[in-house]
Amino acid sequence: MNHLLEALNWRYATKRMNGKKVPQEKIDNILEAVSLSPSSMGLQPYTILVIENEETRRKLQPAAFNQPQLIEGSHLIIFASWTDVTEDQVNVYIRHIADVRKVPIETLDGFKASLMGIVNGRSTQSKAEWAARQAYIAFGTAIAAAAVEHVDATPMEGFNPAAVDEILGLKEKGLTSVTMLAVGFRDEATDVLSGAKKVRRSKDKLILELV
Amino acid sequence: MNHLLEALNWRYATKRMNGKKVPQEKIDNILEAVSLSPSSMGLQPYTILVIENEETRRKLQPAAFNQPQLIEGSHLIIFASWTDVTEDQVNVYIRHIADVRKVPIETLDGFKASLMGIVNGRSTQSKAEWAARQAYIAFGTAIAAAAVEHVDATPMEGFNPAAVDEILGLKEKGLTSVTMLAVGFRDEATDVLSGAKKVRRSKDKLILELV
Repeated sequence: MNHLLEALNWRYATKRMNGKKVPQEKIDNILEAVSLSPSSMGLQPYTILVIENEETRRKLQPAAFNQPQLIEGSHLIIFASWTDVTEDQVNVYIRHIADVRKVPIETLDGFKASLMGIVNGRSTQSKAEWAARQAYIAFGTAIAAAAVEHVDATPMEGFNPAAVDEILGLKEKGLTSVTMLAVGFRDEATDVLSGAKKVRRSKDKLILELV
Repeated sequence: MNHLLEALNWRYATKRMNGKKVPQEKIDNILEAVSLSPSSMGLQPYTILVIENEETRRKLQPAAFNQPQLIEGSHLIIFASWTDVTEDQVNVYIRHIADVRKVPIETLDGFKASLMGIVNGRSTQSKAEWAARQAYIAFGTAIAAAAVEHVDATPMEGFNPAAVDEILGLKEKGLTSVTMLAVGFRDEATDVLSGAKKVRRSKDKLILELV
């Protein structure tokens, strides 16, 4: 079994954590994986907020059904996607590609036109949903990356996005929280799910192979 | 640098592949990772279609802007999420948990009630979008898992879901295609992006750390 599969088998949605701080090096590796996560056309239409500050996590806790992992973990990673995708954002991105790859910006005209087709051809809501889905790819990558570091994590969709956005001032930044990940270390003594057998649909029901 | 970060640095959205077949063992490892991928409340509201059959891939190609990787790769993995989430599906899931964990089904009543709250409290469209987002977590996991296997992959959102659903008869199964991944091996001779520098937003712009 490879390294990643071992990690995915080890992980579970941790319900109780022991308060120990995740070392910065491990946080950095998780964030590096998030940064390397692919997105549609490479746009990365999201911002990742990493909240170590306990006061801020306490403020956020009521907006997340008072889940204890917000405090028992040491960091909360919030995936906030763009509420719209604009021409300005695309222009910044295209310039960035030209800079990184040291190519004349005109060579990217066709690619830019494809992106502008999305910017101008879809509703704001459709673009926001597209952006949210890209954030979910990064979310999946972060969960895997935390497991590889043997850092426990709780993926959390159960929170009030409007309240979280308000507390963190995300709306003004053109962002909305779509999902979050509390990271820390499991407390085996109090977490009833620690050691519980993993439940997954059987492969023959989950996967259809057309050979 | 750990195994996963190395893999994520190695991968890129491959534009041209060389036709070589990905060994079944590697496909199995990618699918094992997909199966282990987390989802909201563990529901896994999607089916994964793995299409090795070349005739079927040829039929699908026009629905995916004739991208060559559908044929130059050896397998196409389609992530098809549930178009609705129903009481029946939740009942099957709850029974499955009770079976796997060997617990009386009544001990899951609270958990079941939470799931039924979603089933009965949200619009079909909202449930479908929720399901699609879960499929994107699996998609992110699959991309990482392919990279760990040093299998090249092209994440593809650019296709006509209605046409793909029609060809594969997904609608009748309560499924809709949300994203896909062609897997194979890069053709360095023809792929202009092979070896291109990876473009990512700088960390200070992508990530906000609140310490």
